[in-house]
Amino acid sequence: MKNVYLHEDGKAVTIIDQTKLPTVTEYLTLGTAKDLYDAIFELKVRGAPAIGICAAFGMYVLAGTIETGDYDEFLKKFREYKDYLNSSRPTAVNLSWALNRMEQVVTSHSDASVPEILGYLKKECMDIQEEDSQMCRAISEYGLSLIKDGDGILTHCNAGPLATSRYGTALGPLFLGKEQGMNFHVFADETRPLLQGARLTSYELDQAGIDVTLICDNMASIVMKNGWIQACFVGCDRIAANGDAANKIGTSGVAILAKHYGIPFYVLGPSSTIDLDCATGDDIQIELRSPEEIKSKFYEKPMAPEGVKCYNPAFDVTDHTLIAGIVTEKGICRPPYTESLANMFGKNKK
Amino acid sequence: MKNVYLHEDGKAVTIIDQTKLPTVTEYLTLGTAKDLYDAIFELKVRGAPAIGICAAFGMYVLAGTIETGDYDEFLKKFREYKDYLNSSRPTAVNLSWALNRMEQVVTSHSDASVPEILGYLKKECMDIQEEDSQMCRAISEYGLSLIKDGDGILTHCNAGPLATSRYGTALGPLFLGKEQGMNFHVFADETRPLLQGARLTSYELDQAGIDVTLICDNMASIVMKNGWIQACFVGCDRIAANGDAANKIGTSGVAILAKHYGIPFYVLGPSSTIDLDCATGDDIQIELRSPEEIKSKFYEKPMAPEGVKCYNPAFDVTDHTLIAGIVTEKGICRPPYTESLANMFGKNKK
Repeated sequence: MKNVYLHEDGKAVTIIDQTKLPTVTEYLTLGTAKDLYDAIFELKVRGAPAIGICAAFGMYVLAGTIETGDYDEFLKKFREYKDYLNSSRPTAVNLSWALNRMEQVVTSHSDASVPEILGYLKKECMDIQEEDSQMCRAISEYGLSLIKDGDGILTHCNAGPLATSRYGTALGPLFLGKEQGMNFHVFADETRPLLQGARLTSYELDQAGIDVTLICDNMASIVMKNGWIQACFVGCDRIAANGDAANKIGTSGVAILAKHYGIPFYVLGPSSTIDLDCATGDDIQIELRSPEEIKSKFYEKPMAPEGVKCYNPAFDVTDHTLIAGIVTEKGICRPPYTESLANMFGKNKK
Repeated sequence: MKNVYLHEDGKAVTIIDQTKLPTVTEYLTLGTAKDLYDAIFELKVRGAPAIGICAAFGMYVLAGTIETGDYDEFLKKFREYKDYLNSSRPTAVNLSWALNRMEQVVTSHSDASVPEILGYLKKECMDIQEEDSQMCRAISEYGLSLIKDGDGILTHCNAGPLATSRYGTALGPLFLGKEQGMNFHVFADETRPLLQGARLTSYELDQAGIDVTLICDNMASIVMKNGWIQACFVGCDRIAANGDAANKIGTSGVAILAKHYGIPFYVLGPSSTIDLDCATGDDIQIELRSPEEIKSKFYEKPMAPEGVKCYNPAFDVTDHTLIAGIVTEKGICRPPYTESLANMFGKNKK
């Protein structure tokens, strides 16, 4: 199942609508800037890597609609589209990272013709997807080295194939291990309010024949206490220079429980989520979303009184002291992260 | 809002249908044994104290329908009704406790006339309600001594007026404080899978004009990290001799987070939930419930693939080392609980 791809004619991006899974498998064709913005904003495409790939494909599609042969005019319009898409979701660094890569293609070819630039843009977005696929494979291999056949793994939200181009990040080791004949017992937090764990993770693992048990988020503690979990694997949306990691709301709670029960907690993600310009998690902006996601979304009728306030942050920041390792495509960073991340990803190492 | 009360004519019990809250506020008039059985069985009335009060009122109503002046015939019919109601939720201790109290009124007045016995029964059921109300009041006062005006309080599940006769246990200090002009900022965990926090706690607090913010269970960590919580108040279903406390699933996770963030975590409940015959939490059996509560209940359509397994424990046990105090109507017990609980509730103290 491909979750994000570019149409052959280059005039649209096709995505699987993740908000309708698992009941309905529906593909959407995104041909306009508004289509793309809405798909990202409404989480029809989600998962930091998948958002980056979709945005890169999207910029290529939108670049093709700019009707000018003049470079400056082309760049101006290109940047308008870029800024518009970039405003769709603030926390995931992959979105701006992918958009910046696409912009750099344009600015580094100011002498080229618009059709030539379009060719370079197409290559760049295809590269972003291919690199993501290779990254996921490498992350999966490093992650797999941390667990053994028969282990119980707890995961939160969805960082599987749907969130990326292939394998996934946090779920990657489980898919790779399955291919190699290993069997894990996965516990998937349902991940309120948008239920990515119930709707996507349990769906993906079940489809792949991996043993999965769905739990409510508040059951992670008893599952750990029962001795059923040997490691926690989660994805990430942004990692600060000190190792603080932003990920789906509830991740920090899982990490605190894991520490309490003496279970290693690992964060898995591509190096593009590491933001060394961000000193600590305090510098990461947390996206706040609508109360309706908590009170009424998915339900037959609202589950709370109309006037009641809700606090609905989409992410939280897991303190670096709670993280046993950060698994990237380049290797596994261990504490102290200020050193290990700088050594692996510092400017002089890039 | 009264949630359970006896009609003036003594011919029916009126309850608020808790399964329809908060969308619909519907009162049900229960005049027959079947009405009463169904209301308890279907959780239309819930919360151990509220169930006991409803059953006691119910027995008085049913006793009034027994058309005989003969004591033995009256007792026989009374016991038939009692056994029938007792079978509606056989595990709820308060139900059999209240029914036994009502039966004892009949058996201890074998020389009285049926109309006289009816008078004693009426007094007994009103006493049961009044005692519960006083118990809640005392717990509320002790609980209120632990917090100050303006504090942020996090609670899990529902232990408010709907579950009792008045005030509630965990929520009692907040209602009492409100009456005294204090203002708290309450954060209510929605409490998956049955959403008692969203449907009942946020509703009760909102109705009383108490500032309440509804959050998903997995948001407790960020709310604590934000510095918004000065204390956690939860109810309890059973407390072991060493202070381990069984309560709604997810409670232990809240306690671990609270400890991590240095926030005091308090358990509030009547002394009847303290079971000194139970040495530790390991002796408390955890009820497992249907996967459908996680996958499809309340939803427009199922939120996980049909074949996916679920683990759905209704309770978990919070380790005594995580509990700053156990608040009962007799006072506040502090660690070490093996000593403080025995001193306050041991056999020689009863």
